[in-house]
Amino acid sequence: MKVGFIGLGNMGAAMAANLVEAGHDVTVWNRSPDKADALVETGATLAQYPADAAQGDVVMTMLADDAAVEAVVFGEHGIAGAPAIHVSHSTISIALAERLAATSGGGFVSAPVFGRPPAAEAGQLFVIAAGDSALVDACQPLFDAIGQRTFRIGDTAPAANLVKLSGNFMIMAAVEAMAEAMTLAEKGGVDRKLLLEVLTGTLFGAPIYRTYGEIIVEDRFRPAGFAAPLGLKDMTLADAAATRYGAVMPLLGIVRDQLRSAIAVDGEDVDWAAAASSVRHASGIALKGQ
Amino acid sequence: MKVGFIGLGNMGAAMAANLVEAGHDVTVWNRSPDKADALVETGATLAQYPADAAQGDVVMTMLADDAAVEAVVFGEHGIAGAPAIHVSHSTISIALAERLAATSGGGFVSAPVFGRPPAAEAGQLFVIAAGDSALVDACQPLFDAIGQRTFRIGDTAPAANLVKLSGNFMIMAAVEAMAEAMTLAEKGGVDRKLLLEVLTGTLFGAPIYRTYGEIIVEDRFRPAGFAAPLGLKDMTLADAAATRYGAVMPLLGIVRDQLRSAIAVDGEDVDWAAAASSVRHASGIALKGQ
Amino acid sequence: MKVGFIGLGNMGAAMAANLVEAGHDVTVWNRSPDKADALVETGATLAQYPADAAQGDVVMTMLADDAAVEAVVFGEHGIAGAPAIHVSHSTISIALAERLAATSGGGFVSAPVFGRPPAAEAGQLFVIAAGDSALVDACQPLFDAIGQRTFRIGDTAPAANLVKLSGNFMIMAAVEAMAEAMTLAEKGGVDRKLLLEVLTGTLFGAPIYRTYGEIIVEDRFRPAGFAAPLGLKDMTLADAAATRYGAVMPLLGIVRDQLRSAIAVDGEDVDWAAAASSVRHASGIALKGQ
Amino acid sequence: MKVGFIGLGNMGAAMAANLVEAGHDVTVWNRSPDKADALVETGATLAQYPADAAQGDVVMTMLADDAAVEAVVFGEHGIAGAPAIHVSHSTISIALAERLAATSGGGFVSAPVFGRPPAAEAGQLFVIAAGDSALVDACQPLFDAIGQRTFRIGDTAPAANLVKLSGNFMIMAAVEAMAEAMTLAEKGGVDRKLLLEVLTGTLFGAPIYRTYGEIIVEDRFRPAGFAAPLGLKDMTLADAAATRYGAVMPLLGIVRDQLRSAIAVDGEDVDWAAAASSVRHASGIALKGQ
Repeated sequence: MKVGFIGLGNMGAAMAANLVEAGHDVTVWNRSPDKADALVETGATLAQYPADAAQGDVVMTMLADDAAVEAVVFGEHGIAGAPAIHVSHSTISIALAERLAATSGGGFVSAPVFGRPPAAEAGQLFVIAAGDSALVDACQPLFDAIGQRTFRIGDTAPAANLVKLSGNFMIMAAVEAMAEAMTLAEKGGVDRKLLLEVLTGTLFGAPIYRTYGEIIVEDRFRPAGFAAPLGLKDMTLADAAATRYGAVMPLLGIVRDQLRSAIAVDGEDVDWAAAASSVRHASGIALKGQ
Repeated sequence: MKVGFIGLGNMGAAMAANLVEAGHDVTVWNRSPDKADALVETGATLAQYPADAAQGDVVMTMLADDAAVEAVVFGEHGIAGAPAIHVSHSTISIALAERLAATSGGGFVSAPVFGRPPAAEAGQLFVIAAGDSALVDACQPLFDAIGQRTFRIGDTAPAANLVKLSGNFMIMAAVEAMAEAMTLAEKGGVDRKLLLEVLTGTLFGAPIYRTYGEIIVEDRFRPAGFAAPLGLKDMTLADAAATRYGAVMPLLGIVRDQLRSAIAVDGEDVDWAAAASSVRHASGIALKGQ
Repeated sequence: MKVGFIGLGNMGAAMAANLVEAGHDVTVWNRSPDKADALVETGATLAQYPADAAQGDVVMTMLADDAAVEAVVFGEHGIAGAPAIHVSHSTISIALAERLAATSGGGFVSAPVFGRPPAAEAGQLFVIAAGDSALVDACQPLFDAIGQRTFRIGDTAPAANLVKLSGNFMIMAAVEAMAEAMTLAEKGGVDRKLLLEVLTGTLFGAPIYRTYGEIIVEDRFRPAGFAAPLGLKDMTLADAAATRYGAVMPLLGIVRDQLRSAIAVDGEDVDWAAAASSVRHASGIALKGQ
Repeated sequence: MKVGFIGLGNMGAAMAANLVEAGHDVTVWNRSPDKADALVETGATLAQYPADAAQGDVVMTMLADDAAVEAVVFGEHGIAGAPAIHVSHSTISIALAERLAATSGGGFVSAPVFGRPPAAEAGQLFVIAAGDSALVDACQPLFDAIGQRTFRIGDTAPAANLVKLSGNFMIMAAVEAMAEAMTLAEKGGVDRKLLLEVLTGTLFGAPIYRTYGEIIVEDRFRPAGFAAPLGLKDMTLADAAATRYGAVMPLLGIVRDQLRSAIAVDGEDVDWAAAASSVRHASGIALKGQ
C-alpha cells in the first residue's frame, strides 16, 4: 500500500521501519527531518510537508500530544484535506479524536497502541482500532506489519482512545499498588524484592508486574522509558474523559497526585514509574542511590 | 507425620483432606464437630479439644479471624502449652502473630496461604512461610501436601502475615482499578467485557485479572467466594500494619471505603469483589440484575 | 467614572446596579439584551457590542466561564483592542488570566469576588484584586461600590484568580468534611442537625459552616444557588493550576469526584453543595424527600 | 459536691483546679502522684487508689487513651464497682464507652470536651455530654465549673464520643484543606500568609482557621500542643467508628495518611497540625527552618 508516516520518535521510527520492511511504499515526515535519514536509506521517501505524506491510501500519525497532532493536521500544509485515510496512533484526548473523526477528508481510524519501543521494533505492538469497519479492514495489513494483534473496538473512533487511556490508567494503578505494598513490606522488615517474587510467582504473573515491579524495586527511574510528564498528560486526558462521561475515579485522582509529586520532588526527567517514589518519600524511605 | 488440624471451613477441610491423602496421621478439631465427619471417614481422628490435636509433631490452624485463633490457642483446653509446632495458616493481625510467636511452647511458624477453595482442594495453594528455619524445614512435607509452592520469608514469623496482607491488598487494588476503568469505558460507550478482553489480552494477563475481571463484568457478587466483611477485616489488618510501621497507603484507604460502601449498600453477603460496585453506583450505573 | 459592565447574570446585574447607584456612568452589554432592561430604566446605557462598553475608563466582565470571556474579549466586536482598563470578575483559568494580562490594550486587573447573589445585591462582596497597583488604585472606587472589602494580592493579575480558586476549593473541602462527619454521626445514631449545632457552637462558627451546614442537614440541593456543573468547572480549574504549579492536592481529587457523582446520580440542576450527597449514597442513607 | 478526679495531665489538672475553686470537695488520683501537689495545696485530697476517688457523688476521668481508662476502671483498685457516677472526659473508642456504660455501678456519663489547655485553665471548655438525663442533670454544676457551655447529645452515652471524634476529624479536615490551598498558592507565587488573611477575612472567620492557620503558615509544629501520635490515635478511633457504623469517609482516609507521614518523616514529637507538612513535602516545598 501507499502509506505516509508522520512522527518519527522512538515509537514512530520503529513502526515506519516495519512498514517499509513489509514491502509498503512509505513516505515519512518529521518536524526534525534528520530523524528520517535511516528510513530513507532503507527505501522510504522524505516528504517536505505533512500533506505530502497524505496523498496515498493511508497516512499514520504517531506524535507526543494533542498540540502536535493538531499542528500536522490543521496547521499549514497539514493533512486535513488530503485524500488518505488518517490513522491516528497517538495517545490523544477524546475531544480531539472526535474532531479528527468529524473533519477528516479521507476517513479516520483511531488506532492507539500498547507497547514500549522494543515491542515497536519487533513489530509486536497491540493495536487498538476503532472507526468505520471498512476503513479498519483496509488498514489491517498495515496493523499486521506493526503489531502482534489488533483489537477492534467498534465504529466510533474515539472509543479506541478511551480504551488506550483506560489501559494506561491501569498501568499506573498497578504501579501505585506495588509501591504501597512494597513500602508496607519494607517498613515491616520484608525485602521488597522478595515481596515482588511472591506476587509475580503467585497471582500477579502478568508482564506489567514483572516489568514495572523490577523498576520499582530498584528505584530505576532514570533514564525514562516513558517520561513522568507524558504520563501525567495521559492521566489528565483520562481525567477529562471521566469528567465528560461522569465516571467517578478516586484511584485516578491518587495516581495523578503521585505523578505531580514525582515531578515536583524528583524532576521532569524521571520515568512515569517514579509515581512509586511518592509513597516512599511520604513514609520516610530514601530512594536507592540517594 | 503426626499432625493436628484445627478449623474445618471450606479451606481447612480441603487442606486437612490433602494431609490425610498424603499419608499423614491427622487429628482434627472443629467448633462444629459434624464438619469433621467426611474426614473421619477417610481416616482422620476427631479430637475432643483443641489441645488434643496438638500432642503430635505439628498442629495447624486455619480460622476466620484473630478472635477464633485466640480462642483455640489461649482458651480453655487450648493449644498454648502443647508440645506440637504451631503452624498458623489464618489471615491474622501482625500483633497476634507476634504474640503467638512469643508464647508458643512447641515453636511457631506463620504460614498463610494464597488460593481459593478450588485450589485448596487440588493441593495447589501457595504457602507463605516464616519462622525459625529448622521449624519450617520440619513442616515442609506438610506444605508440599497442601500447596504447589512454598515461599520462605525469613526467620520472623509475622513477616509472612505481612506478605499475606500485602497480597490481599494487591487483589483489592486490582479490583478497584478494573472497576474504575470499566466504569469509565462503559459511560463512554465501550462494553466493559470488551475492555476486559483487551486488558487481559495485552498487559494484564494474570489470573487475578481474569478471575476477578469476569466477576466484575457480570456483577456476580453472590454467592460470595470470600465475603466482603472478611475482606474488610483483612484490609483493616493491613491498615493497622500501616499505622504500626508508618507506611502511607492512600489506595488502601480507598478500597476500605469501597468495601464499607458495598456492605452498607449491597449487604453483608456479597463477595469482596463487590467493592467494584461502589464506583458503579457513584457514577449512576445500575448493577446487572437490579 | 465611565464604566462598562459585561455579563448581567444574577451576580453581574446586581453589581452593575450598585455601580449605577454610586453615580457612575454605566454602559452595559449582555448576550441576551433583555437582561439589561431594569438597568437601563435606572440610567444605564445599553451597548450594541461588547467593544462599545469598553470605550470609557474601565470595562468589567462577569461571565460564566473561559469560553464566555474569550468570546467577549477576542470575538467579533470584542473588547480586546479597546482603551478601557479591563477588570475581570469571572472565575476563570490561570491560563486565560495570563493571556488577558498579556494582550489587554488598556491594562488588565483580575478581580474575582467572594459572595453569593444576596451579597452582590447588598454591595457586600469581597473583591480579590491583582494587577499593576496604579490600575488597581484607579479601580478602587468601583470596588468600593460593589464590595465591603478589597484584598490586594500583588502585581501579577493571575494571582487573584489563584486565590479565588483556592477559596472555592476551601468551601468544597468544608462541605466534604461536614458531609462525612454528618454521615458518621447519623449512622451512629446522632441527629445531623444536632452535630451541626455543636460544630458551629464551638470551633466552627464561620459563615461557611452555618450556610452550607444547613443546606446539607436539609438536603436542600434544589434550586441551585451555584450549580454543581459550575462548581465542578471551578474545581477543574483548580486542578489545572495544581498540575501547572506542581501542587499535590488529594482532597481536591476527592471533591471533584463527589461533584461528578452528584451530577451523575442527582442531576445537573443541583447546587454544588450536593457534593455532600455522594458519601450519603455510598453509606446507604437516602436523601430527605427521596 | 463530693467529686473525684483521675488523670492530672495538662487538661485534667486545670479542670480539677476549677472544681476546687468552685467549692467542690475534690479527691484526686494520678499515676505519678507528684502531679497532684499543686492541687493538694489548694485543698484537694490525694487518693491512694483510683477507687478511693470514686466513693463520693461523681468521679471524673481524663486520660490519654483506652488503655489508660481501662486500667483505672477495670484494673486493681479500679473504680468499676464504686458508688460514684463515672463521668468520662477522655477521647476514647465507641466500644469502650459502651463497655463503661454497661458495667458502671454508679451510673455512667460520657462527657468529652473541646478546647486546648488554655481553655481548660480558664474554665472555658465545651462539654459534650450524653447519658441518662437525670445523671447529666446531677453533673451539670460540675460541667459549669469547667466549661463555658454544655451540649447534651441524648441518653446514649457513646453518642457523645462519636460527636467528639467527629469534631476532631473536622479539625484535621480543615488543616488538610488549608495545607493544600496554601501549597497551591505558594507554588503559584502567592504568599501563604496573605492567602490565610483572605480566607479568615472572608468566609473562614472561625477560631479553628485562625489558630491552626497561623501554625501552618509558620510551620510551627514544635512543641506539640497536641501530639501527632495522639491525633492519629483519635483518627483511628473515628475510622473504627466508620467501619462499625458503615460510613464512607475518604477525607478521613487522607488525614490518617498525612498523620502517618508526618510522624514517619518529621518525628513523633510534632503537633498534629504537622499533618499539613505532608502535602508540602510531596510538592517539593521545604518546611521553614529546615
